[in-house]
Amino acid sequence: MTDPGPVTDAPRRGPAANAELALLLEVAGTPKPGNVDRARDLAALRFEHFLAGAVGARPGLERAAAGDPVGVAFETAVAGMSEQSGGNTQFGCLLLLTPLVRAAAAEDRALSPDGVAAVCEGTTVDDAAGFYRAFERVDVAVSDPPEGMDALDVRRGADAVPALRERGTTLFDVMRESAAPVDDRGPPGDANAREWVAGFPRTFRAAEAIAADNGPIVDRAARAFLDLLAETEDTLVRTQHGPDVAREVRDRAGEIDSLDGAAAWADELVERGINPGTTADVTAAALFVALERGVSV
Amino acid sequence: MTDPGPVTDAPRRGPAANAELALLLEVAGTPKPGNVDRARDLAALRFEHFLAGAVGARPGLERAAAGDPVGVAFETAVAGMSEQSGGNTQFGCLLLLTPLVRAAAAEDRALSPDGVAAVCEGTTVDDAAGFYRAFERVDVAVSDPPEGMDALDVRRGADAVPALRERGTTLFDVMRESAAPVDDRGPPGDANAREWVAGFPRTFRAAEAIAADNGPIVDRAARAFLDLLAETEDTLVRTQHGPDVAREVRDRAGEIDSLDGAAAWADELVERGINPGTTADVTAAALFVALERGVSV
Repeated sequence: MTDPGPVTDAPRRGPAANAELALLLEVAGTPKPGNVDRARDLAALRFEHFLAGAVGARPGLERAAAGDPVGVAFETAVAGMSEQSGGNTQFGCLLLLTPLVRAAAAEDRALSPDGVAAVCEGTTVDDAAGFYRAFERVDVAVSDPPEGMDALDVRRGADAVPALRERGTTLFDVMRESAAPVDDRGPPGDANAREWVAGFPRTFRAAEAIAADNGPIVDRAARAFLDLLAETEDTLVRTQHGPDVAREVRDRAGEIDSLDGAAAWADELVERGINPGTTADVTAAALFVALERGVSV
Repeated sequence: MTDPGPVTDAPRRGPAANAELALLLEVAGTPKPGNVDRARDLAALRFEHFLAGAVGARPGLERAAAGDPVGVAFETAVAGMSEQSGGNTQFGCLLLLTPLVRAAAAEDRALSPDGVAAVCEGTTVDDAAGFYRAFERVDVAVSDPPEGMDALDVRRGADAVPALRERGTTLFDVMRESAAPVDDRGPPGDANAREWVAGFPRTFRAAEAIAADNGPIVDRAARAFLDLLAETEDTLVRTQHGPDVAREVRDRAGEIDSLDGAAAWADELVERGINPGTTADVTAAALFVALERGVSV
C-alpha cells in the first residue's frame, strides 16, 4: 500500500481562478444601480445567469493564463459564458480580463499598466478575427460603427474577417478605432476600448481604491462601481439611451455618498431599464487586479 | 499569417464545472432557512466566502473528474475551498460532490445510484487518509466519535492515519461507521455518510424533484432544500443544538408551503444561530445531478 501522502501542491488561486472570482464578486456587490446584483434581477437576466457565465468562462480564462492568443482565449471564454439562457452576461468583462489574465500569468507576472499594454499592443489580425467571431456567440449591444467602417462592423461577426485580413487590422487596431471619439463634439469612444489602448488606467486606479478601502470586498466593489460611474459616462447607457441619459446617470452617481443612499436609486434605474454595464466591466477588471495584488476575500 | 480558425472545441460545462456551479446555485437559492443565501449572511460567514470557496474547490473537482483517487481529489478541493477568511463553507458539499463527479466523469458516465455507490465502495485506506487530512485544512463541526472509535476521531486529522492503516480502514468503512445510529434509541448517523453508503438516495430523489419543478433553478433549489429539511433531522443542527432542536426544525420545515412562507422563518433561524448545513450539502449534490442530467440555468 503506497500512501500518496498529503496534498502539498494544493493550488492557490491562479490568475484564471481570480478572474472567475472577480466576475462573481462583481455581480454579488450591491447596490450597483441599474445592474444585476445580489439584491436585484433584471426582467430576463438573472443572478444565476451570471453565476453560470462565470463558471463557463473559466476554460477561456485558463487559456489566457496558459499564454494562448488573446483572440482564441476570448472567444473560448465567451462561448463558455454563453452556456446559460440569460444572454450576454459578461462579454465586456471578459474583453478586459483576457489581456489582464495573460499579463498576470506571464513569466514576469507583468500585471502592470505597461505589462497589459504590451499584451494588447501585441495582438494580431488573428486575435481580431477571434474577437469578431465572439460576437456570433451572444447578442451584444453596440453602436453603429464610425463612417467608412461598415465593413468592420462587429455585428458582421465572422463575415468581417476577410476585411480584417485585407486591411491587416489587429485587435489593438480595432480597439483604437473604438476608443476614438467620433468627432470633437461627439461622445467619447467605447470605455472598454479606452482601457485597452491606454494601459487600463481606470482599472488600476479602481483596484487601488478597492485595496485601500475597508470592509467586505463586495462592499468595496459596490463603492468602486459608484465612483467609476460618477467619473465617466457609461458606454452601454449611452448606446441604449443616448448621451443625455448617460450624463444624467453620471451626475446622479456623483451625488451618492453611501451604499445606503444608492439603494433607492438602484431600484429606479432597474425600473427605467438603465443598465450601466460598461462600468460593471471595469469594476470586475479592478476586482481582478485587487485579488492578484493580495486583497483577500 | 495562419488563421487558427474558429474555436470549435468550446467546452460545454463538464462535471467539475457543473459541480462548481452547483455550489454557487446552492448558496444563491433563497430563502434557505438558517443558511447563508442570496439574501442572508451569518455573523462571520458571508456570501462572498462561499463564492471564493466554490472557485477554490474547482481544481480538486477537476482531479475527481480526471479519475484521481477520491481522497486526493477531496483534500485538494477542501484545501482550495479554504482559501478565504470565512472558515468552513462547503466541506460537506465536497464530500458528496467528489464521488458524484468521479462517477459522472467515468468512461461510462455512471452517474446513477449504482455508479456512485461503486465509486464509494471502491475507496481505499489512502482515500480515508486524505479525508482525515482534509480536517486539518479547516474547522469542521462534528460530533464525538462512537465508543471505541477515539483513535479514528476525525478531529485527530493526520494523527489518525497510523490507526487507519493498522486497521485497514477505507473511506467507505469510515462512512459506514458514521452512518450508523449510535444505538436503537439514539439519533440517526451522519446524513452525508448515509448518502455515501446507500447510493445517494436523497440526492437522486431531490435531483428528480428539481428537474420536475418549474421556474428559475435557484428557486427550485430552495424548494428542494425545504423538502429535504422536512424529511430528516439535519445532522449539523443536531450536532450543534441537540436532538430536540433538530426535530423542531424538521417539523417546522414540514409546515412551510411556499418560499414566501419560509422567509420570516429564515430570519428567525439565522438569529438563533441554527444552521441546517447538512441539508444544504444534499441540496448542492442534488443540483449537481440535475445539471448533469440537463436541467439548464
